[in-house]
Amino acid sequence: MIGAGLIGGSLMRAAEKAGRPVWGVSASAGTAAEAHSDGFEVTTDTDDALHRAAAADALVVLAVPLPALPDVLRRVDAVAPTCRLTDAVSVKVATADAISRFAPRARYVGGHPMAGTAESGWGAGNADLFVDAAWVVAADDELDKEVWADVAELAWACGARVVPAAADEHDLAVAKVSHLPHLLAAVLAAVGAAGEDDLALSLAASSFADGTRVAGTRPELVLAMCEGNRDALLAAVDDALGRMGAMRGALASTGGLAATVKAGHAGRQRWAATRDPQAVRITGRETFAQLRDLGRRGDVAVGWKR
Amino acid sequence: MIGAGLIGGSLMRAAEKAGRPVWGVSASAGTAAEAHSDGFEVTTDTDDALHRAAAADALVVLAVPLPALPDVLRRVDAVAPTCRLTDAVSVKVATADAISRFAPRARYVGGHPMAGTAESGWGAGNADLFVDAAWVVAADDELDKEVWADVAELAWACGARVVPAAADEHDLAVAKVSHLPHLLAAVLAAVGAAGEDDLALSLAASSFADGTRVAGTRPELVLAMCEGNRDALLAAVDDALGRMGAMRGALASTGGLAATVKAGHAGRQRWAATRDPQAVRITGRETFAQLRDLGRRGDVAVGWKR
Repeated sequence: MIGAGLIGGSLMRAAEKAGRPVWGVSASAGTAAEAHSDGFEVTTDTDDALHRAAAADALVVLAVPLPALPDVLRRVDAVAPTCRLTDAVSVKVATADAISRFAPRARYVGGHPMAGTAESGWGAGNADLFVDAAWVVAADDELDKEVWADVAELAWACGARVVPAAADEHDLAVAKVSHLPHLLAAVLAAVGAAGEDDLALSLAASSFADGTRVAGTRPELVLAMCEGNRDALLAAVDDALGRMGAMRGALASTGGLAATVKAGHAGRQRWAATRDPQAVRITGRETFAQLRDLGRRGDVAVGWKR
Repeated sequence: MIGAGLIGGSLMRAAEKAGRPVWGVSASAGTAAEAHSDGFEVTTDTDDALHRAAAADALVVLAVPLPALPDVLRRVDAVAPTCRLTDAVSVKVATADAISRFAPRARYVGGHPMAGTAESGWGAGNADLFVDAAWVVAADDELDKEVWADVAELAWACGARVVPAAADEHDLAVAKVSHLPHLLAAVLAAVGAAGEDDLALSLAASSFADGTRVAGTRPELVLAMCEGNRDALLAAVDDALGRMGAMRGALASTGGLAATVKAGHAGRQRWAATRDPQAVRITGRETFAQLRDLGRRGDVAVGWKR
């Protein structure tokens, strides 16, 4: 495990709880000491951890922020160039690009365990963070099927449900349902707070409270998440702007908002219908195209069909 | 009380609980019978109720939807033309316009008790619906101070806190914090559900769930609320569009979202600071300008200073 923050720390705890041998590194001596005192083999020596991974043919997991990838990947390429490699970074195209550039020989299959809390750091981690969470596993055609199975098994060992998706489809999906909500919440909060007086804010009730909740997230976290997914986010923002422009036109001309409101109501109902996904067992002999179709249907893979 | 739905029915129960004599009318014989069997003097005879109000110099409360106002106001003008008059309609400029047109002699001071539930009808009403709720009382310069005091006292009798505001300021405020949130939620839900597949919706977590919650409201209710506040809502939509356009430009050019995200975070924090308003006692001798300033500061009036 490269990185021992909230996600890396939780993954180590979950993997250990599932009976797997696990060791890791942190860039912070304080974090490494904290993890070590909790009984985990965590040091600050990346090369040593990677040597050990190369010798064991272990799955290396990158649990560091996107900007930290180049330095880490240079070490991977130097010490364990053909290792089995996955990650927990929240964008998949940019991560795959970094790996192509800095560690091109690694047998890489991207991942995105979709869990988190408002907290961060080793101390905030817990072994059950990923239970019942969606864990996207990249399913592009050129990937290594054996490493794909490793990543899926890690996800299942942590209690998560695997959602296979192409890297670019993943990025557009999270732009729409995770990053755009943060930006619309920010815009709504700014409109509500615009002007000198507090009349509007004092009249705000639950629709405003819910619509702006994620605007309370620490700006650094939101920026790191959204700015790393720029291309897909632009597409999502443009979709939202197009719909808002049409709504604005209808309101100004006929005064009618039925098209906007009904489409929103239908969308919310369709979302509600996805809350209880079909849990599917897979053989491992599916093509990546078949796996992507599984994810597109809103289904989740929960284990092997034996 | 003209109207015995959720709001009118709750107002009657709250006023009676506070020891006030109360009688009302409903356009529906079924509703009138239901209210009557609960011990309330509710009939379908608007003229009779208005005759009685004129004789008693009682405060007449309009608790009907905006489109029902012209017919009701024609009866007011015919039977109780100079009555003390208020309302519980959610937009204030359009209501004041209707009164100027159809019952111009009435001593009208607009109101907006900001409470509600997802339910509707007499049966959904309850005497405590307005406890601790904001109740906007119009505070434009030309209003009748005596009727203003009547409306404030009704609000206080129902347990609500009075927020004085000019009619147009009220409409813009609710456009920003109540109507715009419904439209942004609809846009977000539609973007999330766009396309053939369910991948994005299946990956949606709490930011999407919160951001689209009010898109689950019945479309008829949202349309009635938003379309009745067209002018103010256009201003709020344009503010949101301007901010989104600036955000889109920054994302496309520099890739930076800091201005958007930080403004949203600051707005949310400013909203949080308004959650515990200063409770003020008023003398009744304040000017309307002073009362409006009270509302603009985010304070609430909770009774007379004697």
